[in-house]
Amino acid sequence: MADNRGVTYQGPARVEVSDLDYPGLVLRDGPGVHPDNVGRECPHGVILKVLTTNICGSDQHMVRGRTTAPHGLVLGHEITGEVVETGPGVEFIKVGDVCSVPFNIACGRCRNCKEGKTGICLNVNPDRPGSAYGYVDMGGWVGGQAEYVMVPYADWNLLRFPDREQALAKILDLTMLSDIFPTGYHGAVTAGVRPGSTVYIAGAGPVGLAAAVSAQLLGAAAVIVGDLNADRLAQARSFGCETIDVSQGDPQDRIEQILGVPEVDAAVDAVGFEARGHGAGAAKEAPATVLNSLMSLTAAGGSIGIPGLYVTGDPGGVDESAKVGSLSLSLGTGWAKSLSFTTGQCPVMRYHHGLMQAILHDKVQIAKAVNATVISLDDAPAGYAEFDSGVARKYVIDPHGVVGGVR
Amino acid sequence: MADNRGVTYQGPARVEVSDLDYPGLVLRDGPGVHPDNVGRECPHGVILKVLTTNICGSDQHMVRGRTTAPHGLVLGHEITGEVVETGPGVEFIKVGDVCSVPFNIACGRCRNCKEGKTGICLNVNPDRPGSAYGYVDMGGWVGGQAEYVMVPYADWNLLRFPDREQALAKILDLTMLSDIFPTGYHGAVTAGVRPGSTVYIAGAGPVGLAAAVSAQLLGAAAVIVGDLNADRLAQARSFGCETIDVSQGDPQDRIEQILGVPEVDAAVDAVGFEARGHGAGAAKEAPATVLNSLMSLTAAGGSIGIPGLYVTGDPGGVDESAKVGSLSLSLGTGWAKSLSFTTGQCPVMRYHHGLMQAILHDKVQIAKAVNATVISLDDAPAGYAEFDSGVARKYVIDPHGVVGGVR
Amino acid sequence: MADNRGVTYQGPARVEVSDLDYPGLVLRDGPGVHPDNVGRECPHGVILKVLTTNICGSDQHMVRGRTTAPHGLVLGHEITGEVVETGPGVEFIKVGDVCSVPFNIACGRCRNCKEGKTGICLNVNPDRPGSAYGYVDMGGWVGGQAEYVMVPYADWNLLRFPDREQALAKILDLTMLSDIFPTGYHGAVTAGVRPGSTVYIAGAGPVGLAAAVSAQLLGAAAVIVGDLNADRLAQARSFGCETIDVSQGDPQDRIEQILGVPEVDAAVDAVGFEARGHGAGAAKEAPATVLNSLMSLTAAGGSIGIPGLYVTGDPGGVDESAKVGSLSLSLGTGWAKSLSFTTGQCPVMRYHHGLMQAILHDKVQIAKAVNATVISLDDAPAGYAEFDSGVARKYVIDPHGVVGGVR
Amino acid sequence: MADNRGVTYQGPARVEVSDLDYPGLVLRDGPGVHPDNVGRECPHGVILKVLTTNICGSDQHMVRGRTTAPHGLVLGHEITGEVVETGPGVEFIKVGDVCSVPFNIACGRCRNCKEGKTGICLNVNPDRPGSAYGYVDMGGWVGGQAEYVMVPYADWNLLRFPDREQALAKILDLTMLSDIFPTGYHGAVTAGVRPGSTVYIAGAGPVGLAAAVSAQLLGAAAVIVGDLNADRLAQARSFGCETIDVSQGDPQDRIEQILGVPEVDAAVDAVGFEARGHGAGAAKEAPATVLNSLMSLTAAGGSIGIPGLYVTGDPGGVDESAKVGSLSLSLGTGWAKSLSFTTGQCPVMRYHHGLMQAILHDKVQIAKAVNATVISLDDAPAGYAEFDSGVARKYVIDPHGVVGGVR
Repeated sequence: MADNRGVTYQGPARVEVSDLDYPGLVLRDGPGVHPDNVGRECPHGVILKVLTTNICGSDQHMVRGRTTAPHGLVLGHEITGEVVETGPGVEFIKVGDVCSVPFNIACGRCRNCKEGKTGICLNVNPDRPGSAYGYVDMGGWVGGQAEYVMVPYADWNLLRFPDREQALAKILDLTMLSDIFPTGYHGAVTAGVRPGSTVYIAGAGPVGLAAAVSAQLLGAAAVIVGDLNADRLAQARSFGCETIDVSQGDPQDRIEQILGVPEVDAAVDAVGFEARGHGAGAAKEAPATVLNSLMSLTAAGGSIGIPGLYVTGDPGGVDESAKVGSLSLSLGTGWAKSLSFTTGQCPVMRYHHGLMQAILHDKVQIAKAVNATVISLDDAPAGYAEFDSGVARKYVIDPHGVVGGVR
Repeated sequence: MADNRGVTYQGPARVEVSDLDYPGLVLRDGPGVHPDNVGRECPHGVILKVLTTNICGSDQHMVRGRTTAPHGLVLGHEITGEVVETGPGVEFIKVGDVCSVPFNIACGRCRNCKEGKTGICLNVNPDRPGSAYGYVDMGGWVGGQAEYVMVPYADWNLLRFPDREQALAKILDLTMLSDIFPTGYHGAVTAGVRPGSTVYIAGAGPVGLAAAVSAQLLGAAAVIVGDLNADRLAQARSFGCETIDVSQGDPQDRIEQILGVPEVDAAVDAVGFEARGHGAGAAKEAPATVLNSLMSLTAAGGSIGIPGLYVTGDPGGVDESAKVGSLSLSLGTGWAKSLSFTTGQCPVMRYHHGLMQAILHDKVQIAKAVNATVISLDDAPAGYAEFDSGVARKYVIDPHGVVGGVR
Repeated sequence: MADNRGVTYQGPARVEVSDLDYPGLVLRDGPGVHPDNVGRECPHGVILKVLTTNICGSDQHMVRGRTTAPHGLVLGHEITGEVVETGPGVEFIKVGDVCSVPFNIACGRCRNCKEGKTGICLNVNPDRPGSAYGYVDMGGWVGGQAEYVMVPYADWNLLRFPDREQALAKILDLTMLSDIFPTGYHGAVTAGVRPGSTVYIAGAGPVGLAAAVSAQLLGAAAVIVGDLNADRLAQARSFGCETIDVSQGDPQDRIEQILGVPEVDAAVDAVGFEARGHGAGAAKEAPATVLNSLMSLTAAGGSIGIPGLYVTGDPGGVDESAKVGSLSLSLGTGWAKSLSFTTGQCPVMRYHHGLMQAILHDKVQIAKAVNATVISLDDAPAGYAEFDSGVARKYVIDPHGVVGGVR
Repeated sequence: MADNRGVTYQGPARVEVSDLDYPGLVLRDGPGVHPDNVGRECPHGVILKVLTTNICGSDQHMVRGRTTAPHGLVLGHEITGEVVETGPGVEFIKVGDVCSVPFNIACGRCRNCKEGKTGICLNVNPDRPGSAYGYVDMGGWVGGQAEYVMVPYADWNLLRFPDREQALAKILDLTMLSDIFPTGYHGAVTAGVRPGSTVYIAGAGPVGLAAAVSAQLLGAAAVIVGDLNADRLAQARSFGCETIDVSQGDPQDRIEQILGVPEVDAAVDAVGFEARGHGAGAAKEAPATVLNSLMSLTAAGGSIGIPGLYVTGDPGGVDESAKVGSLSLSLGTGWAKSLSFTTGQCPVMRYHHGLMQAILHDKVQIAKAVNATVISLDDAPAGYAEFDSGVARKYVIDPHGVVGGVR
């Protein structure tokens, strides 16, 4: 019997639950581990018993075969767990603590970390700034869709929940703190959402829904969500958003019906490079569609938050430009309106404490908004397949059966 | 029969409804008008038929005789109305528009206005930056607790409601945009309130309650309101705040019971210079009590928003220091905790559009939170007296009987 | 003898000095005036005797025939002058005041102006937010490369210099406040330049040089300017910049030589849509070159300020994409590095007072940095031609011969 | 022969150079060490060979006997050194690195550190947030006016200079990065200084001079420094400041002579609680004088940065209020002008990288501005005495004789 088990990528559209080594306070060689990271000692790390670990839309890019992810890669960067072992360099985190793990791995010791830019830590990925667990080209840190996982720089990275019982009671909300809630929130914040804003969010997947919840938490007057998927739009309506089916035409017309003006104050791109066209062309992938659309429908002086992933290379892209990550953007439209744009990974640490407080004081219901659905570890492959089919669910893996309510 | 009627100050504890001249597009001589402002032409002004005009806590400073306000001063700086005449220099505001009037009078042409600092306009008060309608030492602009009032620089100052019917339907909420809602909001914003913050608000009068509502709108995790007045504390609880009766001892102890820690992230002083002591000394005026208390109970690194009024001279002060506006502040306590402080009039224009949007989209119920109570113009003197007695009400005068629901 | 004379566009590569009507406090019909603006009364305006008015790189877009500018359009949006007549609605600006005119025309009464976004005023251009004097598709306000010009909303728009004699003595510096100094400064500010920053500025035309000066004023540790034009690079070196000849290869290599790392903290695009390629392809227009290059050479977490103009349509574009204003941008590169982007016209009013103070107190020598060169009005056509040839000069027209030093 | 030698406090007006234990990677018991910190293991620490360590004005508070500092306390919190030993938990700092040590000790693992608030770290001082080396009531971390010192959390705290030779060549400038340069800069930043600002700085001691240099680096149009000490004022004039001798009367009158208006845009209190009166009362300690004066002379809408130390208790205070740290502040004056105030220790880490870059690229000459004066370790007691006499010097101790130029 193995010491550990986890979800691994085994080629396009194939994930499976595999036996894995029990993690140690070292990054051992394995699929996807960068040579410079092999054998990296982590006395600053802890071993977590994973309580919940979610399937993310960005995992799907790998599983769809749109990346160079190697076979055997252990997936999972949305991790919540209980500390079962601490390294000798760990001082404040203790065995028994229940913690949220930001998906960005950060050292807490480089210039970017010191400036709060934990999404682009300089010391964890030999290839470039920024890293994540279980992700291609991110340094090779082992993923957390598993029973156990090692978290480096634990004093820096981990957010400890103040009370264990309270944490377990709200675990389905708190599990969203590792990625999608802060990521959606970052989109809303960088879009300039504030009390009274009108907001358009492109994409009703989990990040889009999280951005919508965040816009509400930030006091937005109206939150409008656009997508092609009727189930996901229904999910957005379930918590008070207006919705637009972008397969039916230009979202700007519908915005005018809803708001009386064809523009919003703030916009979020929660789709990224796998965008499809609007209206009649909705079936076809069209990577620049969302951003061009947002430039049209955002009022002059507005900002566009772009948490949706854009890549530097996409072997599966629709054309030569897309394959090298080039987008045909109508920048002149944005320039004439003095728009601003913010891209990149969310620096989770900047936001997770405040969002945790909002959850713990019942100010926000993120699990319900994204339709959190608990599955067992063995059911993870099915979860991946279902999620890829476009269901309006956020799958939360419960590797140890502690959450309850497993489907 | 007079062309206009309004509330005038007639000496300590005496206000009455007097016959007044119908306003023109000029600032004529009258009680409290600064000599340099007498005869000031206002082609940029409009005449408003006042729809609602509220009694404010800062009016009470005058009515209690704590200022040098002259007899005959027309009171009222919280004004909402319908435009019935526009000056030749008014281009975008039209007759028939229903508008909110920021209590700060601002020219829209000086350096401070250009920087959005409309609370300290350089061109409207010959004595110093900043002005208001119907207030002592503010240049002498005639107050709006009247049937009609002149608003200068109307294109700049007025916030037009997008739809007349909708505005009338929500007039009790919208009437709070002229002062207390933005003022409370400014307190919360400058205290650094953001999603997940824990917040303490000193004072459960209308501004304190507005600050509490604002903190909720900004996403605060917990909002705690302290006061001596049981009715006002009950009002704060009615919309989800925790409360502290500061006559029962140091608020810090109660904060610890509520939050588990004896500190909050952010604090607002909605009391000002007429503060009374805490605990056993609660009956006695003690102007530095609130600020010293807030320095103690705000966590290191926090900010304190100070919308509560502090004055440069207070003839009725408890001692010599208070009479000249000096407070004995434990600044060392604040310094050791790296606190920041923001004082002054709220620049209403910075916030009123967003807060209007939040009202119009039903994201906030400010009228209910402050217990808006409609009275007729003739009932204004009774409203002043009741408000001064400490009732948990915000009095809204309805000079033309258009609101309905007059008590 | 005509009452007024000014520079007019007469077709590609043709400008001439024409007799014009003396301006009134009304926008009369004429070349390029939007029908909805014809006959617009401006009691809020003043007539300026133009003391200096500069030729701008963005004028060249029209003169090169890259726009739909009509023949007869009076050019000029960089204006400094003396007030010779004030409208009845002007209260604080007086006859005799010497003032700088922000190139953006703004009403001071719309939501955007109230938020300080004077580059996208809602009330001056019937086509879309934002306007300027003497520019195609900007509402038709008459240009100021003339003896006299009308400035609307004068109390709001004009920056009065505190002392006439001092102003005339420093007029060659102060004349840059109407556009290029604030525009370059806006680029540097929105690129996040602060004390100690390393900065790359693409383009050594007047705006690029102004951005370089601004970066120095903001405390940058190192300012590097790239261009294809040797004279302009020499000009940049004249005030302490490092320079890169981008025709010699990828600027990133040279940055590494200069700084020891191949990246800068902040970058400014002072080129815009008429960009040419780098290295061997430098001769050919390649509109996305600059932005793609800046994404490569800006460090993760940095910002890119984009004062360089990008247009929504460019009939003279190199290919079909360029003709409709589409750029093939490697957004994935920027996303991976969490970059931010700010586009649009500089809101001059946000900056001109502070920059004026820096000039008046001798903290900055902007005229020298951009090589201000005074010419007569009659010499303006020659100035346009020379400027278009790529000389490292900023031409300042002196219509009344008051500046002295005319070439 | 001792392994280490350092400056110790031996009672009011008495410091001496004492034999000390060589530091280890543990905080051993000793004078002033908090019981909870005794024996604290520091595997995250390094041992520094001290290259330079400066005498600070805040050391003087202890040496004057104004605190409860115990005899034997090792002084010194302004430290620059070479790493000679690293703990097992140190990953990125290496033996041989030449580094600046922020005077605030910070863990890099608490909520405040994660937010960049390193001046109020929660984990290093058992009494309250915030700590420093060699200072009373700061947890007992051993001071660095010594040959060797231990720096905890070294990967987090230390700023490594990129090149050893360059660092040694500019060591007199770089040594100011540990405290006074960032502290003065923090004062200027929190006062809102930006390009074109007019600035008043109260106090021409080293922090005041550093604030003046910082204001210049930030682009201020005019920097005015006030003090009672003629030598220090002359020092301020040496690098382009205007000066005011506050013993000669109200500084506001002189400001009007200098600027033409009696107000500045921004003000810095670089004096703190040991302030003396202005004008005729200048000889007498008057702790509220500086802040009350700054509220009078700062323009409406301005900010006041307060790096000067205010304490919670001062046994040597002039009266009962001063002894408990209470100041009689004219807050009403500040409120009427909508002023803001920022207090507390400078979070050095927020600024030291940028300021280092400005030094290394020769954009600022801080050593010259504060008149850096090198002395030997044995000469430290004389340096304390001279500094206390009010000379216009910043004393830099060179314990190993590596700097050269020792007096």
